[in-house]
Amino acid sequence: MTNTQVTLVQIDNYGPWTVTPEPRREADLQTMQSRLYADISQFVGNRGGYTFFTRFDNMIAVTNGLDREDHALLQESVGNRYPVTLSLGIATGTNPVQALADATARLQEAGSAQDKHRRECLEGRTIDDAYRADDDVQIAHFDVINATGNYTDELNAFDTFIEIEQGYAELMRHMRYAHDSLSFFVGGDNVIVVCPDLEAADYEEALAHVEEAVDVEMQVGVGRGKSPHEAGFDAKHALETCRADGTRVELEWKTA
Amino acid sequence: MTNTQVTLVQIDNYGPWTVTPEPRREADLQTMQSRLYADISQFVGNRGGYTFFTRFDNMIAVTNGLDREDHALLQESVGNRYPVTLSLGIATGTNPVQALADATARLQEAGSAQDKHRRECLEGRTIDDAYRADDDVQIAHFDVINATGNYTDELNAFDTFIEIEQGYAELMRHMRYAHDSLSFFVGGDNVIVVCPDLEAADYEEALAHVEEAVDVEMQVGVGRGKSPHEAGFDAKHALETCRADGTRVELEWKTA
Amino acid sequence: MTNTQVTLVQIDNYGPWTVTPEPRREADLQTMQSRLYADISQFVGNRGGYTFFTRFDNMIAVTNGLDREDHALLQESVGNRYPVTLSLGIATGTNPVQALADATARLQEAGSAQDKHRRECLEGRTIDDAYRADDDVQIAHFDVINATGNYTDELNAFDTFIEIEQGYAELMRHMRYAHDSLSFFVGGDNVIVVCPDLEAADYEEALAHVEEAVDVEMQVGVGRGKSPHEAGFDAKHALETCRADGTRVELEWKTA
Amino acid sequence: MTNTQVTLVQIDNYGPWTVTPEPRREADLQTMQSRLYADISQFVGNRGGYTFFTRFDNMIAVTNGLDREDHALLQESVGNRYPVTLSLGIATGTNPVQALADATARLQEAGSAQDKHRRECLEGRTIDDAYRADDDVQIAHFDVINATGNYTDELNAFDTFIEIEQGYAELMRHMRYAHDSLSFFVGGDNVIVVCPDLEAADYEEALAHVEEAVDVEMQVGVGRGKSPHEAGFDAKHALETCRADGTRVELEWKTA
Repeated sequence: MTNTQVTLVQIDNYGPWTVTPEPRREADLQTMQSRLYADISQFVGNRGGYTFFTRFDNMIAVTNGLDREDHALLQESVGNRYPVTLSLGIATGTNPVQALADATARLQEAGSAQDKHRRECLEGRTIDDAYRADDDVQIAHFDVINATGNYTDELNAFDTFIEIEQGYAELMRHMRYAHDSLSFFVGGDNVIVVCPDLEAADYEEALAHVEEAVDVEMQVGVGRGKSPHEAGFDAKHALETCRADGTRVELEWKTA
Repeated sequence: MTNTQVTLVQIDNYGPWTVTPEPRREADLQTMQSRLYADISQFVGNRGGYTFFTRFDNMIAVTNGLDREDHALLQESVGNRYPVTLSLGIATGTNPVQALADATARLQEAGSAQDKHRRECLEGRTIDDAYRADDDVQIAHFDVINATGNYTDELNAFDTFIEIEQGYAELMRHMRYAHDSLSFFVGGDNVIVVCPDLEAADYEEALAHVEEAVDVEMQVGVGRGKSPHEAGFDAKHALETCRADGTRVELEWKTA
Repeated sequence: MTNTQVTLVQIDNYGPWTVTPEPRREADLQTMQSRLYADISQFVGNRGGYTFFTRFDNMIAVTNGLDREDHALLQESVGNRYPVTLSLGIATGTNPVQALADATARLQEAGSAQDKHRRECLEGRTIDDAYRADDDVQIAHFDVINATGNYTDELNAFDTFIEIEQGYAELMRHMRYAHDSLSFFVGGDNVIVVCPDLEAADYEEALAHVEEAVDVEMQVGVGRGKSPHEAGFDAKHALETCRADGTRVELEWKTA
Repeated sequence: MTNTQVTLVQIDNYGPWTVTPEPRREADLQTMQSRLYADISQFVGNRGGYTFFTRFDNMIAVTNGLDREDHALLQESVGNRYPVTLSLGIATGTNPVQALADATARLQEAGSAQDKHRRECLEGRTIDDAYRADDDVQIAHFDVINATGNYTDELNAFDTFIEIEQGYAELMRHMRYAHDSLSFFVGGDNVIVVCPDLEAADYEEALAHVEEAVDVEMQVGVGRGKSPHEAGFDAKHALETCRADGTRVELEWKTA
């Protein structure tokens, strides 16, 4: 059984801030957002977690290995270095979608994302070290088969982007509704999916579904570990096996 | 008539680099990519341009106001500060999709995105200052109507993301195939679209199409200017008018 | 007794890199160096340590609370995101100068700072958690009395800088040779000093020496803790007491 | 004759901010300061200028090539992305120390560095393009002869730092009082000096003075150009000649 710890990272009252007292330069907003994301990714990542940029004003992180003190330190450090602050909602469970729903509910109960009096909330609980297990996190790393040869070197850059985006949009919906999983585009032609206890057949079904629906061929490596980094690192190695052997689904931990 | 200058920014041989000699930590890749994007956004943005993160390994910029020397300096500066290098393809035209297609073709002719001998190419020409005009760039800034009230404060964070992502996916395809425009998600519930010479009726049609297709209600402000920043700033002001007045389409330059 | 853990952070073969194949743009070197420092400061700092920029190509960190695994992760993460790599030497002891000398010696034994075959060395041992104590680190935080009123708002910016620099230069030499302490300018008019087991009289002597030698009046707050952050935070609070009460030396832990 | 344009960059009311409502984590302050410096260095640098970190809360830039609009954009961009704001004072002249004194006076007249009502001042004038000349800026780039062999690989890292710091402290005072020049440590064993119209004999005198006073042997390359980058780049090449030929003073523009 997986036990995924999910953190919803929400910039406090961000929308209004971006247009107060009048709209701010878009390039500055883009720079600030992506650097804030980079910093959170680094903080969470060097403790073994994964952070996804998602909508930038709402980021989703898998934080097995970080306790409440770590979360509080992240808030403090961002508050010391950025013109915006963060609220954090944390929840855990065997079903990543349910965990995120719980994390979201905790922040929603604390106040609206655009409530100017809701600042630096920290809601929810983390998994005690004593309860962490070696198979708490399952990560699947998908990519598009021969994306460079079939798309990047052939189509114009936007049409390639549309193809990959379509594959992602279909995969994200399918994995969420059919498999209770959270899928995130992470650049290039890569999608990282945070999963409950899925099996090879589930991934084969998902690949077939995406190919059928939008004609994008993907492959996937899957890993399992105590932390997102461990699970994700195994998933990357499994995906290397797909690339080398021409297989479509590789589960690293099955062979361990 | 618009005359959009588009730059395709491609990290050289990036995919292979990310797994050589073995897969690199995902959090480091995410940090590096988003900071590289932030730096390019800042460089281009403080010269009046716009950069979109797109796939991160392939970024698309609108660069009216930057000459070849600026592009070369960006390449040099990134090469001095990052473990990766950039190739740049530039093209211009009345149709942004065609301009991007031309920019892409120039890089493709220079070599594959995964050719390790193709490094720091700079291909294509920019618009001479003497030929720049006050209406060269048309930018539309879309957002989802009451996204915070309808989605962020109501659904779980991933289901909100799916809704916004669906709206974006539909809009990007429609604007590209029906209106020769390039659409980019820029965070929150915002999509910025680089357009040819479109009129209010075109935007109304697009809004109706997206609502019909995926049931996401959007509004749009449109601006026009010599540079992306000028056009985009007017678009932001126009979008503020939508928000204040409850209108769906506002064209700032019509009232100028 | 203090037990300071010191890490020498050395960029591998940096000098030659800055001029190969020809000199790199100074602004890029400055940007890269200071961002690399910022990242190390953040990594070490959110584990309770302190990092000083020192010469930028050689940085000195106080790393009580970080183990070898943390050090290795820092090396890996920098190697994934920068065009340069780091070697690290670690040593511990009651005398910070001796600890740094030992840390330095370990790297020197591994090879020259400009040996292109010496890359990503990690030498030395950290303090086992079982041996860490609440008074392992002593930090003194000095500043110049009324620097803004006496200097910044009165002299030209360079002459102010010369005054502060002179105070620092005298303090760093005196604290090193008379008190086995490591002093670092940290911006503004602030100097942070990593000390062995010093007493109030030692700080009074140092303040008197600096005032006598270069006519710069300073004050100092001193703290003690398990980590540099804890000791330094107490030192900052003690310095606030100096500012509020007009005292010259405050030792926070004496009053605890 | 040189005509140096100097900008004093001052963080508004920074000291009080660092301790309000209570002292902020030192590692966060260090990270924020050095990244802010990096951003300014990049903005100014990719327009041909040089920025020196100096005291971090007061930075000094040589900005030939930047107009008031550029300065205003820098202020706006920093204000959009950081928790602090900048005030800028600009002045020009044949004597860099006098130019900095004038730039400082303009900010001092606008208010104290710790006046919380003085925010985002922009004072002073830049050189009109029509009046810029190819020899407006003279830059000297000093380093310590065989610093790696004599110090870094021999002494402990702090004693090396003391040696280099001593050389710098002596050079900065001497160049300021004897030669109206502004000297900045830029990392490693490098010092960059912004000079008026000095000749080879002046540099020889300065080298002899430093060697006599503190027994540190330095060499220097000097360049001249329309912008700091051009002058500084020639200075770097000249310094490479010193390193190759064993000479002590090289003036690049004499051979042009």
